[in-house]
Amino acid sequence: MPAEWAPHAGCWMLWPQRRDTWRNGGKPAQRAFVEAAAQISRFERVTMGVNPDQFENARAMLPARVRVVELSNNDAWMRDTGPTFVANDAGVVRAVDWQFNAWGGLQKMVYFPWDLDELVPAKVAEIESLDRYQAPLVLEGGSIHVDGRGTLLATEQCLLHPNRNPERSKADIEQRLADYLGVSHIIWLPRGVYADETDGHIDNLCCFTGPGVVALTWTDDRGDPQYERSAEAFDRLSAAADAAGKPMQVHKIHQPDPMTMTEDEAAGLDVVDRAKHRPCGKRLAGSYINFYIANGAIIMPRFGDRRDEAAARKLAQLFPDREVIGIDSREILLGGGNLHCITQQQPAGAVP
Amino acid sequence: MPAEWAPHAGCWMLWPQRRDTWRNGGKPAQRAFVEAAAQISRFERVTMGVNPDQFENARAMLPARVRVVELSNNDAWMRDTGPTFVANDAGVVRAVDWQFNAWGGLQKMVYFPWDLDELVPAKVAEIESLDRYQAPLVLEGGSIHVDGRGTLLATEQCLLHPNRNPERSKADIEQRLADYLGVSHIIWLPRGVYADETDGHIDNLCCFTGPGVVALTWTDDRGDPQYERSAEAFDRLSAAADAAGKPMQVHKIHQPDPMTMTEDEAAGLDVVDRAKHRPCGKRLAGSYINFYIANGAIIMPRFGDRRDEAAARKLAQLFPDREVIGIDSREILLGGGNLHCITQQQPAGAVP
Repeated sequence: MPAEWAPHAGCWMLWPQRRDTWRNGGKPAQRAFVEAAAQISRFERVTMGVNPDQFENARAMLPARVRVVELSNNDAWMRDTGPTFVANDAGVVRAVDWQFNAWGGLQKMVYFPWDLDELVPAKVAEIESLDRYQAPLVLEGGSIHVDGRGTLLATEQCLLHPNRNPERSKADIEQRLADYLGVSHIIWLPRGVYADETDGHIDNLCCFTGPGVVALTWTDDRGDPQYERSAEAFDRLSAAADAAGKPMQVHKIHQPDPMTMTEDEAAGLDVVDRAKHRPCGKRLAGSYINFYIANGAIIMPRFGDRRDEAAARKLAQLFPDREVIGIDSREILLGGGNLHCITQQQPAGAVP
Repeated sequence: MPAEWAPHAGCWMLWPQRRDTWRNGGKPAQRAFVEAAAQISRFERVTMGVNPDQFENARAMLPARVRVVELSNNDAWMRDTGPTFVANDAGVVRAVDWQFNAWGGLQKMVYFPWDLDELVPAKVAEIESLDRYQAPLVLEGGSIHVDGRGTLLATEQCLLHPNRNPERSKADIEQRLADYLGVSHIIWLPRGVYADETDGHIDNLCCFTGPGVVALTWTDDRGDPQYERSAEAFDRLSAAADAAGKPMQVHKIHQPDPMTMTEDEAAGLDVVDRAKHRPCGKRLAGSYINFYIANGAIIMPRFGDRRDEAAARKLAQLFPDREVIGIDSREILLGGGNLHCITQQQPAGAVP
């Protein structure tokens, strides 16, 4: 699996519409997704997958340069439901199709059913005429990060959670990651971001910004439940080395101030039995780590927070050759994720 | 618009499933479509568009080399609902998106609604990243044939039918065909094939097989209602010239013996108010003219009729450089069309 900073053929996204995830019939979130797609498409081809009933609306709202294709889905988290793309030494790109159980199956009940989500990787691979591996492992793309040189970053909270692969040992899971992603070394962090609905996806907590270098969401507030989580991750990372044996360099990026869902926001959501209830007052798992690396750009969340500028400056330092672009992403965060969660890079491959 | 015999980038099809068109839940027709796709895909890339609920079934039934993409539709007639592809002198291919009213709108009521069909050209163009012209004319792809050199062949019965473009004069329609297809000369034949549900699509009656050469469905039986229709077409063609002023050479291909829908076949269909009833005993508009020209092959209908072999021999003479492949197509004919109706060629373009 190439690192996210390796050249992309393009970026895949899915269109938000479900009324129990996205308030006001999805309209505010759609505007945020449009802004993200518009910015990313300045740097690489963006393909937006849409349910049939939203094709015309999405086509009308998106810039013409964004490709809009029919791609039925239960929700818009392309990072988690989409394929993971891998490339061999000859540059041939293939898709890995993980098993998906909507972040924890029926016991978790983020939503039900997730039958359309399960077909997303196959449909993406078909459109691109790419071969596809069906990996026997329940896994979401947001629960892994790689450096493209053999190192994988993940949380124990998520990958070892009994609601994903209860029958598999840690060694067994590590073997499958090695088999399907070509990694040789895994850095395990204990837990993800506080209040994250994904059981601690790595992509909201910590990511590679280069070989041997990671960025970690941080807070100086010892009273915040996130403090302990970031601190223990920092300790693990400080003691860790990558696949090449190089010690990790860790950059802290201070999180935005704690945010909660407002009464007005919660009132815009359908409340249904078959999906998680998102009540007013719910803590939102805001983090600047949930950015997307495009060809030549960093597409990062902005929250209208006093920390926005410091985070942007830090990312500009970490990616000196890329333009850092902020997207007002509160509407995406209200749905439970952020820019990395709604994107999936397709690496540039050899021309067949 | 290039001639159908010009090199193709590929072939588009749609998957049959509606229970009021295709008997026994579509299963026999699906097998016929699979056979057609399998044969065509030996010569050029085939993309099969499917409704979301048939993705897995179609993927499982089709050979791996056929690309299966989600493409919602009301029925499987890609020739009529799909785009017409055109190319400019630089080899840039674009899609023409005609208006579609399901072969005659509400007064005809082949089926209702046809909202998904109307979006097929846009979705095909999006997948291929092709620009698209929205043509202000109700027209189906099966109602026109071109020689790629400025000549268009059509029937007055269909193109001038008041259920298509009642507000437009013949001259107005001719102008629009000239504008969108780049044709300069139209050969009008009076009527299409007897019992054809399309109000006389040209593609079941007569087609170009080369510049200045056409094949025409024929019967020697003066008692058959088709006789008069073919004879009047023959007379028109014999007096006609193409855009270059060259007289037309006409090859007759004798039609299969008259066929009707059996009691058993009719019993396999849902009978619903919102679609045309297809009763037992209905005459089927069988014709060998409804073949598809693939790169290096002719994909032709077979009916298990005594005329099958003569038709195949004739097509082999007319296309000496192509392999002639017969498909048992009764199940497609039962739905109201044949191989040309379920395919749409995408011309090979310049590499951008």
